[in-house]
Amino acid sequence: MSPQKGLKLKQLHIDTYREPIIYMHSKCAVCRAEGFQSLGRIQVTYGGKSVIATLNKIDGDLLHDDEMSLSDYAWKILDAREGGVAYVSHPQPVLSLSHVRSKIYGNRLDKLALRSIIDDLVAYRYSDIEIASFVTACAGDHLDLNEIIDLTSSMVEVGHRIDWPYDMVVDKHCVGGLPGNRTTPIVVAIAAAYGLVMPKTSSRAITSPAGTADMMEVLTTVDLDIATIRRVVEREQGCVVWGGSTSLSPADDILIRVERVLDLDSEGQLVASILSKKLAAGSSHVLIDMPVGPTAKVRSLSMADKLGGYLKTVGHQLGLNVSIYLSDGSQPIGRGIGPALEARDVVAVLQNDPSAPQDLRNHALNLAEKILRFSPSVKPHEGLLTARDILNSGRAWTKFQSICDAQGGMRDICPARYTHTITAPLRGRVMEIDNRRIARVAKLAGAPTDKEAGVDLHKHLGSQVEEGEPIYTIHANSLGAIDYALAYIEDQAPILRIDG
Amino acid sequence: MSPQKGLKLKQLHIDTYREPIIYMHSKCAVCRAEGFQSLGRIQVTYGGKSVIATLNKIDGDLLHDDEMSLSDYAWKILDAREGGVAYVSHPQPVLSLSHVRSKIYGNRLDKLALRSIIDDLVAYRYSDIEIASFVTACAGDHLDLNEIIDLTSSMVEVGHRIDWPYDMVVDKHCVGGLPGNRTTPIVVAIAAAYGLVMPKTSSRAITSPAGTADMMEVLTTVDLDIATIRRVVEREQGCVVWGGSTSLSPADDILIRVERVLDLDSEGQLVASILSKKLAAGSSHVLIDMPVGPTAKVRSLSMADKLGGYLKTVGHQLGLNVSIYLSDGSQPIGRGIGPALEARDVVAVLQNDPSAPQDLRNHALNLAEKILRFSPSVKPHEGLLTARDILNSGRAWTKFQSICDAQGGMRDICPARYTHTITAPLRGRVMEIDNRRIARVAKLAGAPTDKEAGVDLHKHLGSQVEEGEPIYTIHANSLGAIDYALAYIEDQAPILRIDG
Repeated sequence: MSPQKGLKLKQLHIDTYREPIIYMHSKCAVCRAEGFQSLGRIQVTYGGKSVIATLNKIDGDLLHDDEMSLSDYAWKILDAREGGVAYVSHPQPVLSLSHVRSKIYGNRLDKLALRSIIDDLVAYRYSDIEIASFVTACAGDHLDLNEIIDLTSSMVEVGHRIDWPYDMVVDKHCVGGLPGNRTTPIVVAIAAAYGLVMPKTSSRAITSPAGTADMMEVLTTVDLDIATIRRVVEREQGCVVWGGSTSLSPADDILIRVERVLDLDSEGQLVASILSKKLAAGSSHVLIDMPVGPTAKVRSLSMADKLGGYLKTVGHQLGLNVSIYLSDGSQPIGRGIGPALEARDVVAVLQNDPSAPQDLRNHALNLAEKILRFSPSVKPHEGLLTARDILNSGRAWTKFQSICDAQGGMRDICPARYTHTITAPLRGRVMEIDNRRIARVAKLAGAPTDKEAGVDLHKHLGSQVEEGEPIYTIHANSLGAIDYALAYIEDQAPILRIDG
Repeated sequence: MSPQKGLKLKQLHIDTYREPIIYMHSKCAVCRAEGFQSLGRIQVTYGGKSVIATLNKIDGDLLHDDEMSLSDYAWKILDAREGGVAYVSHPQPVLSLSHVRSKIYGNRLDKLALRSIIDDLVAYRYSDIEIASFVTACAGDHLDLNEIIDLTSSMVEVGHRIDWPYDMVVDKHCVGGLPGNRTTPIVVAIAAAYGLVMPKTSSRAITSPAGTADMMEVLTTVDLDIATIRRVVEREQGCVVWGGSTSLSPADDILIRVERVLDLDSEGQLVASILSKKLAAGSSHVLIDMPVGPTAKVRSLSMADKLGGYLKTVGHQLGLNVSIYLSDGSQPIGRGIGPALEARDVVAVLQNDPSAPQDLRNHALNLAEKILRFSPSVKPHEGLLTARDILNSGRAWTKFQSICDAQGGMRDICPARYTHTITAPLRGRVMEIDNRRIARVAKLAGAPTDKEAGVDLHKHLGSQVEEGEPIYTIHANSLGAIDYALAYIEDQAPILRIDG
């Protein structure tokens, strides 16, 4: 221990995402005396809580030399208050980093080693650079099956696990989503209408124009606490809520952010990420929807086989029944891109509207079949018939409305204030749709922040079009956003390629 | 390309070390429209220059929503001006990251792949997380000899290489320094006095109480530009300058910072780091001082053999003659710890002062012998005699004074304003000295920022002491700093362990 001197906390409101940063003045006496260097790691203690943060030095007048600030993330972890006095010191060495080094040198890690890494991760003792090193050391097939099992169980142990008073709790997960692939609300409605318990937590968009939680939020409230989720599920057997407010796998929340930056999710980490969240959510049976296609996350059937095998084996070891459904990942599903437009498609399917997108309806029915087959009371050949019957009879739509009521009331879908339709420049056939760029147009129009904004796709691959026929429509809440999207479109080769 | 809108630059003076960070307001229209996420990568363009920076969002009033700021490092790269208008866009994908992923999956990288990684590194296209991933992927013995050669030559090619009009340019490097191990000025003085050309660039302290450049700065100017270094070397055959202002290996500057955080320098990267700088400095012959000991960087003779073999082979491939000197890395060398106190020891050895630390003198003579033996005119058995003769005759001291004169004039060593001596609490023998903690006392006293501050060690391992006899003295320029160091000492077990 070195002599500690306090520094006054000043909030600068800097969002570094999940990296805890401490800001100190370069002339700060404590900083100089302790020999803290920029990018050095510093233990910050305030009111009984503590976090290890990376130092950024400030040279101007943002801070006095007897003040410090913290990034939003560190500020929240410490529950810091403006003007409060915090203390800084050199942190104890993070011992589990020796296990990371051991993994880099190709050694197997046992449960104790993996657990100590995960413990230090969730205690915010790893810097981003150290997290990146761990993620890299595990990637490239460097985790064997036992390591994946131990990593997954460690991630479950450090989080909060929901216990349900039901023998069977079903769940689904899609590996690497497709644009518009909003099967979840339909599948939950069918499963819950049948009587299965399906408490579904979904994510918001990270880089896409909408996540399932964003889409669902058009129709009802999704940020519920665990007590409210329990009440909804007790009454309706199902829910579709945002998983972020519950933090089911805090270790995964920390790892996944760095994996995403590195565009590295190795099989081991993918399995641990998916299953730790499902185990924490208290699921007993999980269906994994795995779209396979050249531009999907799972690119080949052999990769799908290997990943599916890991998911089943690790799940089995940890008491989770895992079923895999391989689907076509070569093109988007549905028409709307953006929260409200996707919600419209989902409601159309649930209402058996004849104009509803049939690809979305069929994919949802296939998944619902697999979910129903988890139930011992559904005979193998009856799954699809049962699912179709629940949907066609309107029972799924009734159940969906009840779920929305229980989550806080069902809302109407509002249209966007402005639309602009793009028409075909020639007669011909749609040969190519650039999904990445169509998603970008939806984002430039305002999605997902503006729920009503997005793109409505009128034509799919192979469609025959006449010159001047609408091919897609931009929806936005301001003319500026329409202009912004149009400027992007004009700057590009056509997003739908039509061969005459 | 998307429509670009400019944002006004505002300087916030935030030092993130070498990580380029862009700060934008969370309400900034450009930020929202482009869908930039915190921790996302953004291309910033200003006046023809460009850098890829990581986004931190700001929510308070540090920035308006039409402003942006940059970390000091990014600000300097762009040569930004307060109020100037900069443009942001999504960067092109960094293609060389696919080679990093390939390395993670255990593949060999060829010269083209390694060169493209190094090109992107020095163009500031990698985030810290991506650098950490590359460093980790190469560690753990994952680079073979050809990869190390290609990595080293790539690092040389992207930097500026100094050409000397001499056939032989000698150099030395110490792998993982020992406290007080300031042989460099003595070796340079002896080599240059003999007539060898030895333009030595040294580093400043990073975590230690003094680097060779800090110590040398007590006696003369060390931050010289390349033109001045050339003039000094033309006149005196030698120099001891700070290498930081010349940036001999820009790729290494970027990598080494992350390697240091991860405490990972694999053999491959260590070899590339050392040799790229020596090649860029225009050296033809390099002596590597490799202290071996349980707490040194090189822990065993087998590790020393392997590392030495790599250094020699890679050096040979790239036209550099490398010689290895294994030395005792079990205890510190000399007495002073801190720039001025170490300079005093160096001058005492050069002046043949009978009270000069003999361990420093002997180690410097051994290294000088190896350097002299690079010269074809020195017979193998005459190296040590020649070195000793140059030192004993005063020619080394004369040469050292001339070098200091050429670098900007020789300065006197000033004493610190205050001293405080710690005495032995009992009669006995010094059995242990905690190097890490004695270095910490020197830093708390003010070193290396206060050049005169530090610790003077009066006793070494095995010394017999009487009760009350001085064992070490703290030097500082303020009573506050003395108190600060004493508070640390009182809080600890004795730093010198004396057994009675």
